Formats: sequence, C-alpha cells, structure tokens
Amino acid sequence: MESSSLIIAIDAMGGDNAPDSVIAGVKLVRQKNANVRFLIFGDELKVRPFLEKYKLDAECYELIHTPDYVASDEKPSSAVRSGRNSSLWLSIEAVKKGKASAVVSSGNTGALMAFSKLILGTMPGIHRPAIVTILPTRKGECVVLDLGANAECSARNLVEFAIMGEAYCRAVLKREHPSIGLLNIGSEEIKGRDEIRLAAQILRSSPLSEAFKGFVESDDIALGTVDVFVTDGFTGNIALKAIEGTARLMVNLLKDVAAGSFLSKFGFLLALPSLKRLKKKMDPGRYNGAMLVGLKGISIKSHGGADAFGFANAINVAIDTVCHDLVGNIARQLTSVEFLDEENEK
Amino acid sequence: MESSSLIIAIDAMGGDNAPDSVIAGVKLVRQKNANVRFLIFGDELKVRPFLEKYKLDAECYELIHTPDYVASDEKPSSAVRSGRNSSLWLSIEAVKKGKASAVVSSGNTGALMAFSKLILGTMPGIHRPAIVTILPTRKGECVVLDLGANAECSARNLVEFAIMGEAYCRAVLKREHPSIGLLNIGSEEIKGRDEIRLAAQILRSSPLSEAFKGFVESDDIALGTVDVFVTDGFTGNIALKAIEGTARLMVNLLKDVAAGSFLSKFGFLLALPSLKRLKKKMDPGRYNGAMLVGLKGISIKSHGGADAFGFANAINVAIDTVCHDLVGNIARQLTSVEFLDEENEK
Repeated sequence: MESSSLIIAIDAMGGDNAPDSVIAGVKLVRQKNANVRFLIFGDELKVRPFLEKYKLDAECYELIHTPDYVASDEKPSSAVRSGRNSSLWLSIEAVKKGKASAVVSSGNTGALMAFSKLILGTMPGIHRPAIVTILPTRKGECVVLDLGANAECSARNLVEFAIMGEAYCRAVLKREHPSIGLLNIGSEEIKGRDEIRLAAQILRSSPLSEAFKGFVESDDIALGTVDVFVTDGFTGNIALKAIEGTARLMVNLLKDVAAGSFLSKFGFLLALPSLKRLKKKMDPGRYNGAMLVGLKGISIKSHGGADAFGFANAINVAIDTVCHDLVGNIARQLTSVEFLDEENEK
Repeated sequence: MESSSLIIAIDAMGGDNAPDSVIAGVKLVRQKNANVRFLIFGDELKVRPFLEKYKLDAECYELIHTPDYVASDEKPSSAVRSGRNSSLWLSIEAVKKGKASAVVSSGNTGALMAFSKLILGTMPGIHRPAIVTILPTRKGECVVLDLGANAECSARNLVEFAIMGEAYCRAVLKREHPSIGLLNIGSEEIKGRDEIRLAAQILRSSPLSEAFKGFVESDDIALGTVDVFVTDGFTGNIALKAIEGTARLMVNLLKDVAAGSFLSKFGFLLALPSLKRLKKKMDPGRYNGAMLVGLKGISIKSHGGADAFGFANAINVAIDTVCHDLVGNIARQLTSVEFLDEENEK
C-alpha cells in the first residue's frame, strides 16, 4: 500500500449488512477517488470473500485481522471493558497512532462514541464533543448539532457547538460563509431558556457575529433558513426524530394512497420516475455520516442500516473533513471567541 | 335565545379571515348540532353582514357589540392593559360569569393565553396550565402537551400535564383508557433529564400507573405508540414545529415532482382523488383547536389562518370538553395522585 495518499480506517464488522455493504461502499469511493487508501479492520474469514466479490484493487487497502467485534446491542460500558481487541477499537486506534486520518464505522453508536472519546481525546478548549449531521431542506441541505451527545448544555457548550458546526458546514457542504441559528421556541429576544439567550449574547460579540442570525425555530430546518442549526443534544434529538418520523409517516400515507384504487395505482406508476427522484432527495443514505466533532481526530458514524451508497457517503464525509482540516479549523476559531468569565469552566 | 342549551362564547374578531370564517364555522356547527347556541362578540358593523350572508338562525345566537379588538401582532402585556373592552376579553369573561360554557378564538395567541389565565384563573392543584393539541399518527390521532406555555418544567408540572392530557384524550378522542408516554431521547431508564425521570417515578406509583407506558421518543408521535405524549413546553414546541415543517417540505417536494414532467403531471391527475383523501387526513384544520388546559374554564385557541371547517372543528373541541366535564375530571384525578414532598410547591 502506498503511504503518500489519504488513508481512512474502516471498521468492517459494524452494521446490519457488514462486511458486505462496508466493502461495497469502499469500492464505490475507490472508483471515484484513486488517491484514497484504506486500513480495513475485521475478521479475515468474513471480510476476504467480499474483497474478492467487489474486486477491490490490492494496492488500495491493507486488511488487519481481528476476530473480535462489538455487537450492535452491547452496552458501551461493557464494550469499553472487553472490546479492546475489536475491529472498532483498533480502527479508532489507527487514527490516534497517525496511521489513518479518519475512521468510519456503521457499528454500535454508543461504543463508537465512548471509544472515540477515550482513544482520541477531546480537543483543547472544547468541553463537550457533539454529534453533528446533515439534513435535507427546501433549499438543499443544512447542518444540525448536537443530536444527542449532551442532554443538557451550558451557554459555553452551545457556543462551542456553533464554532464546530460552522467549520463542519464549510468542510462538508462547501459553503464559504455559513449562517448560524440558535434553535429556540420563538425568534423574539425574550423567548426560551437562559443558556440560549446567554449563548446568543456571546455569539453576537464574537468573530461569528456576522454569521449568527439569532434564534430560529424547528420548522426553519425544513426551510433551510440558516446553514447551521445549533442546539443541545436533548432538543436536537427530539427535532431529528420528529423529522424522521414525519417523513416516514408521509411516505407510508402516500403508499396507502397509491394502493387505494386502480386509477391511483396507474397514476403513481406513470409518475414513478419523478417519485424516484423525490425518494433520492429524501434518502437517508444521502445524509449518512454523523460525526462526533470536538475530538482530536475524525470519527464518523455511518447508519447501522446503511447500504453501499450510504457507507460511501460516510467515507466521503470523512475525506471532506480531513481535506478541509476540520480539527485545525475549529482550534483556530476557538481561540478567537471570548467567553464570559462564569462560562469558562463549564 | 334559549338558555337551556349549551352556550359557546365566540370572539368574532380574531384571525386572518375574521369575521367571515368565524361566522361560517359557527354556521357549520349549528347545521349539525341544533342544541348549541352562541354568544358572538365583535363589531356589529363588521359581523352583521356575515350573519346575514350565512343566514344564521336568529334564535341560535346573541350578538354583543364592541368596537374594540386585539390586533394579531399586539403584545400580550399591552393587550392586558388596553384590551379590557375587546371582543376577546369580553368573550372570555362570559365564561367566567357563567353565561357561556367555553370560549373559542382565532385571535392573538399570547393575548388569549394571558387573558384566559387572568380572567378564568388556574385550577386548584394545577401549578402551570399547558397548551394541548391533537396530531395525526399512522394509527389515527394522539394528544400532545405542553406545546409552549412553559419553557421549563418540574417533575410535578409534567405529572400534572399527564393528568390533564389523559382527561383531554378521553373527552376529545373518546378513548376509554388512553395510554401515556413521557417524551425523552431514549426509552432506557437512565436516559434524559432528572425531572423526566422523577416524573416517571411519580406516575409509576399513581393511579395512572397502568396507563403510563414509560419513555417514548419523538418519532413515536408519527407512529402513535401512545395516546398522550407528555413533555415540557420547549420540547413540545420544537417537536410540533419540526413535524409541521417536515410535512410542508414533503408536500412541496411532491408538488415539484408532480410538475416535473408531462407523464408525472398526468399520473398525479389520475391519482388526484386519493391524494385529496391524503390531504384531508393531514389537513391542519382537522386538528384545529388547541386548548389551554388547567384553567377554571374552557378556552380554545383556533389557528389564526383557520377556515370555516377549521373553526368549526375548534368549536367541536370546545363542545366535547364541556360535555365530558374536562375540568371536573382533571380535578378528581389530581386529588388521587401523590406527589413527592419536595415537588409539592413548584
């Protein structure tokens, strides 16, 4: 394997369709990007057949055998104790040791988060890492964080999320000057909770003041009113799952309608090519690749049910964040924000 | 006007299409329910023409003239000072004075809430009134509260919401034994915030223990996993607006698709009757009529943009809650729950 190119560590054993969809995703990325190489961690007996099935070019990867893996339903606390020889642990460790620039896994979310924090460590100046992802909007796409890493947040945490989300948006969505909004239950100054109002005050006197558009509401996500939506992990998780649930409800109601009568069946058949484009726009695989930002290294969570297309997208998020030096970007922005004294140590 | 029948106070001046859609809504209710009568508050010059337009039976209503009304963008604090002769104030006062059993308004939400609390007062045992509404699910409909009256809540507040939501569900959705869930970011015991875990503990040892199904997540709303979703006003507002925003996004994307090609246009035309049924199911008018529960009287908020059908639904919510003695029901249930000592005075 050449060492001059970008190297991504892959946990081949995580996810519902692993290692099949994982290796198929690697192949998709490799076809479009000859400069990327992979350290693939997993059980050789299980992984090798798929390396052959997808005819992965031998010089683009190295397979590191380990028989251990973390089960999808294993508790993070137990995984931390017994999973130190697992494909997940070893693939994250490859980033820590500088052998790879990022790690991607479809495995156990809790274990990935716990291992990543433990192995990579939190960036200086960041008090709480956050989960960030991309969601579809009327205008295109937006960035939302935190999605559940921190149920309760201080104003300082929220400001750190704003900094990380802005850098992530520039790296992954390629926006030059992303706009930022704080999720609240009204756009008026007096609305919401203390920590949100205090975070707004800090942002207004920071270098992000021009990017900061004030308070936004959760229906602004679908509208794409701003590029980056900042909120605590409890609220972000509630918004994300409300969006996912409603999207699925609408699709199911539409299917009921399509099956309702011969005429509507025929009608939907005629509209099928257009409907497929709609499905593609709302496809979770398109938005696959949540990241735990705020660590000294890049760790990407792919959805457990991701197919090859979804896993390839998660790898592309890893590549984008590495190429845009996301970690360095966040570090530089952090030094330029003045936090209020009482918020410094939370 | 006969006095033996059920009487509803109507603020004729509130809402985008007032008084037209208000009087049209009254007419729709009257056509199906000859036993309901109305006290209509508003500017006679503006209201009278619509009473004539919709040929409202003279013996079913009394028009109480007042030239004052609260503007939709007026701040509640200013409305409280200067709005005491407004159609909104007088219609709520009619409930307080026992002249009507409930009030319905499409007007200024903040003013309706402030006036209702001020005039009707909070029920003994209830510390914070909550906004409750009905949302569509895969299975049918569910009840969600609080939707924004209280940004932060104690465990006791959440338990009071559970009691009020359960009674509301029996009254409006006619479920005999509604199930209750506490909105959280995971169904495991250890997830979420302290007040939610404490509320769960209180509910488990209350007469509602059988109805209480533990923690639910926000994608459970679309699935209709339980009948009553209980949460603080901040979280409820975030979930509600995320749902509304996503539903609108999906409809707009579908419209784009329908306009995309001749074939899909033709296809959607064939499916139109079925699509109209879908639209009817998701129609906000069907779910119109949010209520401020926990007051010594019934005050219903209709959406500002409600049409006749929507306003009629809001009146029907008022009728259902009166006929099921919602206020008495909540009072009885409250006396049977044992709160933990430290939660008694919050």
